[in-house]
Amino acid sequence: MTEQVFPRGVFCAALTPLDQDLNPNLPAFAAHCRYLVEEGCTGVALLGTTGEANSFSTDERKALLEAALAGGVAPTQLMPGTGVASLPETVALTRHALSVGVTTVVMLPPFYYKGVSEDGLIAAYAQIIERVGDDRLRVVLYHIPQVSGVPIPHGVIAALRARFPGIVTGIKDSSGDLAHMTALVERFPGFSVLAGADPLMLPLLKVGGAGAITATTNLCARDLRFVFDHHADPAKAAEVEAAQGRVVAARERASRFPQMASLKALTAARTGDANWHRLRPPLMALSDGERAALLGAGDEFAKAS
Amino acid sequence: MTEQVFPRGVFCAALTPLDQDLNPNLPAFAAHCRYLVEEGCTGVALLGTTGEANSFSTDERKALLEAALAGGVAPTQLMPGTGVASLPETVALTRHALSVGVTTVVMLPPFYYKGVSEDGLIAAYAQIIERVGDDRLRVVLYHIPQVSGVPIPHGVIAALRARFPGIVTGIKDSSGDLAHMTALVERFPGFSVLAGADPLMLPLLKVGGAGAITATTNLCARDLRFVFDHHADPAKAAEVEAAQGRVVAARERASRFPQMASLKALTAARTGDANWHRLRPPLMALSDGERAALLGAGDEFAKAS
Repeated sequence: MTEQVFPRGVFCAALTPLDQDLNPNLPAFAAHCRYLVEEGCTGVALLGTTGEANSFSTDERKALLEAALAGGVAPTQLMPGTGVASLPETVALTRHALSVGVTTVVMLPPFYYKGVSEDGLIAAYAQIIERVGDDRLRVVLYHIPQVSGVPIPHGVIAALRARFPGIVTGIKDSSGDLAHMTALVERFPGFSVLAGADPLMLPLLKVGGAGAITATTNLCARDLRFVFDHHADPAKAAEVEAAQGRVVAARERASRFPQMASLKALTAARTGDANWHRLRPPLMALSDGERAALLGAGDEFAKAS
Repeated sequence: MTEQVFPRGVFCAALTPLDQDLNPNLPAFAAHCRYLVEEGCTGVALLGTTGEANSFSTDERKALLEAALAGGVAPTQLMPGTGVASLPETVALTRHALSVGVTTVVMLPPFYYKGVSEDGLIAAYAQIIERVGDDRLRVVLYHIPQVSGVPIPHGVIAALRARFPGIVTGIKDSSGDLAHMTALVERFPGFSVLAGADPLMLPLLKVGGAGAITATTNLCARDLRFVFDHHADPAKAAEVEAAQGRVVAARERASRFPQMASLKALTAARTGDANWHRLRPPLMALSDGERAALLGAGDEFAKAS
């Protein structure tokens, strides 16, 4: 049953490298996407929270998706974020993805207005899907209330699945709350529930979840993919446990200081490219002291991963 | 001293009428802006929270500003919101305003990422102002933490005033907290502090505030302007008190149900144009029952205002 759930697998919420003017570095981004697939990611969930997408313009987002494709990543391996505050721009970004052959998108709810009604959220998603008007579309809803300020309640999911069967197929649950993810799996059979936090993918898989879209996969995709592939194999229990341990350690390491800046610092260490340190304001790179504290004690990790 | 503060006066956070496809109705918007100026508004703060601006695209926002100008409102009377989550689009909207002669803008902080550092917020505003690169620019910061999720702390204001004197000239404080507004007036002499709630303009003026940018002004601009013009005139104390009473009543009336939908329903009643009822999702029009409850008991108000 769960085999039919789509999407399913280990997806990386890819970082976005910036040039010295704080604009997206397209060649470096394409190379990073290729790296993630080579490391074992089922696909790349580009242009999400971790990818700083909401600090980019519509044009920058389109260029980044096209760069990943031009860099050799298959359209079926790309799952861009297309949900922004503006309804027509969400439509435009989603249409653009479809126009380049990318059919699965991760869609934030419109996130400026808070405390909106369930009917309002349903109407917003419905407007977007109807304006896009393409049966190829597959939408993964994006529940990250601590950042978006707009949770996606069960009533909204139920209404959208009933109205758009085969189109609204999953949810990225970045609440960090395993009980919330488990309740989604139980309430909505056949719905793809993807963990937004690496350590929670394993327990979520055990109750019928579909995998994960995570930030730490920028560092440890190989280990998370191993957990995904072998979690149900008793003969590999020890190896799965070891891989899961490395995933947990990687996430803890990246969470001591601001996570996205830490992931970029660790990627800079891995690649030897200091350009990776930059973030676009309002997010900031680690301070020199933070960087030293992060990298100093475990440089071997940065090199090994 | 406070006379030199800019901007200063009564500004309406203008509603945006929509057509049957839920797209901005440009002629109706231009007519509404003219009405607001005729009713006594110092200017029109279009494309704010009340104007549903963050549900519109960059192109729609530009078209609305141009429609207000084409409709006969002077550039000096227009104060559009230009702050969006995306840094380059904030720059583009601000440059567009300047290109049509509109120099004062109300600027939200980038509002997707939450819990950002003061340095990050300062860097974001600085990037925007530097990329715009136009000394004519006047920025009113927009503090509305209950919606944006991103408060603007004193440290950010102090840093931006020091770095961009004459450019960062004021703040719209929609916190609803008079103590917060008063503290801003006391901490930052010469800074324009504008109340985001109609009833608070009068007490704020008494401690040195510069006026208001409010939603209820869509209904009661004449009264709020009277309070602004005569609050310091002992001979008009009774009239000021009466006008303030009507302002408070109008706001209370518009707050019984969702405020923006209520303001649109009351504007529909005033103009006799039912098209005014529409909102773009995720915001929703009042239900029939809410509309009846709102309009039934006080239709004379809707007609009289």
